[in-house]
Amino acid sequence: MRTRAAVAVAPGKPLEIMEVNLEGPKKGEVLVEIKATGICHTDEFTLSGADPEGIFPSILGHEGAGVVIEVGEGVTTLKPGDHVIPLYTPECRECPSCLSRKTNLCTAIRSTQGQGLMPDGTTRFSMLDGTPIYHYMGCSTFANHTVLPEIALAKVDPSAPFDKICYIGCGVTTGIGAVLNTAKVEIGAKAVVFGLGGIGLNVIQGLKMAGADMIIGVDLNDSKKEWGEKFGMTHFVNPTKIEGSVVQHIVDMTKTPFDQIGGADYSFDCTGNVKVMRDALECTHRGWGVSVVIGVAAAGAEIQTRPFQLVTGRVWKGTAFGGARGRTDVPQIVDWYMQGKIEIDSMITHKLKLEDINKGFDLMHEGKSIRAVVEF
Amino acid sequence: MRTRAAVAVAPGKPLEIMEVNLEGPKKGEVLVEIKATGICHTDEFTLSGADPEGIFPSILGHEGAGVVIEVGEGVTTLKPGDHVIPLYTPECRECPSCLSRKTNLCTAIRSTQGQGLMPDGTTRFSMLDGTPIYHYMGCSTFANHTVLPEIALAKVDPSAPFDKICYIGCGVTTGIGAVLNTAKVEIGAKAVVFGLGGIGLNVIQGLKMAGADMIIGVDLNDSKKEWGEKFGMTHFVNPTKIEGSVVQHIVDMTKTPFDQIGGADYSFDCTGNVKVMRDALECTHRGWGVSVVIGVAAAGAEIQTRPFQLVTGRVWKGTAFGGARGRTDVPQIVDWYMQGKIEIDSMITHKLKLEDINKGFDLMHEGKSIRAVVEF
Repeated sequence: MRTRAAVAVAPGKPLEIMEVNLEGPKKGEVLVEIKATGICHTDEFTLSGADPEGIFPSILGHEGAGVVIEVGEGVTTLKPGDHVIPLYTPECRECPSCLSRKTNLCTAIRSTQGQGLMPDGTTRFSMLDGTPIYHYMGCSTFANHTVLPEIALAKVDPSAPFDKICYIGCGVTTGIGAVLNTAKVEIGAKAVVFGLGGIGLNVIQGLKMAGADMIIGVDLNDSKKEWGEKFGMTHFVNPTKIEGSVVQHIVDMTKTPFDQIGGADYSFDCTGNVKVMRDALECTHRGWGVSVVIGVAAAGAEIQTRPFQLVTGRVWKGTAFGGARGRTDVPQIVDWYMQGKIEIDSMITHKLKLEDINKGFDLMHEGKSIRAVVEF
Repeated sequence: MRTRAAVAVAPGKPLEIMEVNLEGPKKGEVLVEIKATGICHTDEFTLSGADPEGIFPSILGHEGAGVVIEVGEGVTTLKPGDHVIPLYTPECRECPSCLSRKTNLCTAIRSTQGQGLMPDGTTRFSMLDGTPIYHYMGCSTFANHTVLPEIALAKVDPSAPFDKICYIGCGVTTGIGAVLNTAKVEIGAKAVVFGLGGIGLNVIQGLKMAGADMIIGVDLNDSKKEWGEKFGMTHFVNPTKIEGSVVQHIVDMTKTPFDQIGGADYSFDCTGNVKVMRDALECTHRGWGVSVVIGVAAAGAEIQTRPFQLVTGRVWKGTAFGGARGRTDVPQIVDWYMQGKIEIDSMITHKLKLEDINKGFDLMHEGKSIRAVVEF
């Protein structure tokens, strides 16, 4: 069949809207009509050329929602008409990782996915002249139709609106999951969130769900204060507007009459900046502070600290897709949205048509959008 | 009173054996007759001058065992005749750290201890000419008598031999505790220990207690293989005698027919070398590997890695005194020794008189001792 897609033809170039060929689903695969897709910083990272693993030409996009059109041989858990969210972290439920009970990082199709291929080692997309177009993060949601493995689709409540729940395909789950699955924040905790973009705001709403007492947001942009407060932030820090280091500032803010040591119980880096990741670790409490890296760092960038920070009880960890098992946890988060337990609507600041998708990237560069969503 | 002590008069100089003045215990303090003390790398670190927080003249030593001679005003939990192990990590049971249920790093006397002083800001030791001699790690066990705060003494089984249980004051507890308290290793785990000295061997015996399936020891010195095996090590790696990197080697060793990703479930750095700390993190399993820093790094040295290592599920943590609460957990470890649940005797490779204490440092430099113990 043919479908319309925004194709990343080369690094650093705008996406090109074109008709492309799409082969039907092979064994274990599913054809999905994408109804809406968010534009995330990770798409931008790859499109810019900064991602050393970027492959071109490819169809980017990994934060979508849609409807099953057709299923390939052997597919048993989905049928045409099911509403689904594509998963860049699949959940096969039979690999060593899925069975470990310790991680969400399913490895069933990791090697082919990293090469922009379906599990059989080929692509389903091609240019009209036959040139193969690579898949992206196993999803390629910047196309009106796409093919995914069955294990990379979460079946969700069919009454949920596509233009909102597409965001659960990445940002919402990553932020909330980092709090609930990775950090396991407890009621009464003091937490700091560095970077109040599309991930950071979801970390904040996760912290609010978890019952944190103090939710400190850190951003260089004062306009993020209002955004943070909307989702439960209790304190805002602009590092350019304080005396001294942000680490000391946070340590001081978190002191109590009883506890004069100070430091956050939990911190989250949502910036991808390795210097900020260090601050995030070092502002946590001696003895038990846990710092979670969420942001994707520039190629080759390294985090660094004195081992004394760890020896005195701080823990440095990271999270991918918020530690969520896609097929199990994503439908639950959709239900939370439908029940009003989490908020998404106000974060979708811009709606675009596919032909205007490059505007979505511009809005991101300008810091004007929390999330721009393309509707088909 | 007067007592005999090995005094660190200046960095880089041998200890000097001399008579010193010792004031009796003040409020909340206890006079202890030290019966035996181990010589640990941390004493060497400070004596060498490499420790930026080293203070001179001081009486080093922090791995001792002895008998209570006299108690100061208000001391309620100890009486003359009690057998005790001094604690460089005290346990006051009323500071924010002790009450957190999350850390053993009691902060009740941290600031004065770091300055070589008793909690009231003075020293109990002095030269015969009146020059104050500083305390070390709150213990100063290289003296026949010493004064400690009540909260820095663990009361232990009086039938336990001083020349063995002194080692529980640091090395044994640090190694075993890192496994049981900090990493919480589970039955069937695969673990790697970097550095098979006095701490590493105790990590190995902790792993054996915890029921680990695979206990890989890594050391540059082949003579450590036999030592490791004595305590439960199942595999030995000498990084100078393998092809390629130690990280890849361990990843390959830990692969199974089912799990072709490979990597250790847990790793422990007992070297203090920041490059080894990085290897220790990176050889752990994607998705859930936990690496624990135990070794004390050189002043200013920093650990470094790509944040991708954390984002893909590895956890970097550290431990001090094995995460053990001294007054609560140390008596238990002494009981384990008395019950034959852990082994200490063979690790005490050398016994010395106080006058020969500098020989103990020589043996350590030459790699000839696991532990040299001074008996009074």
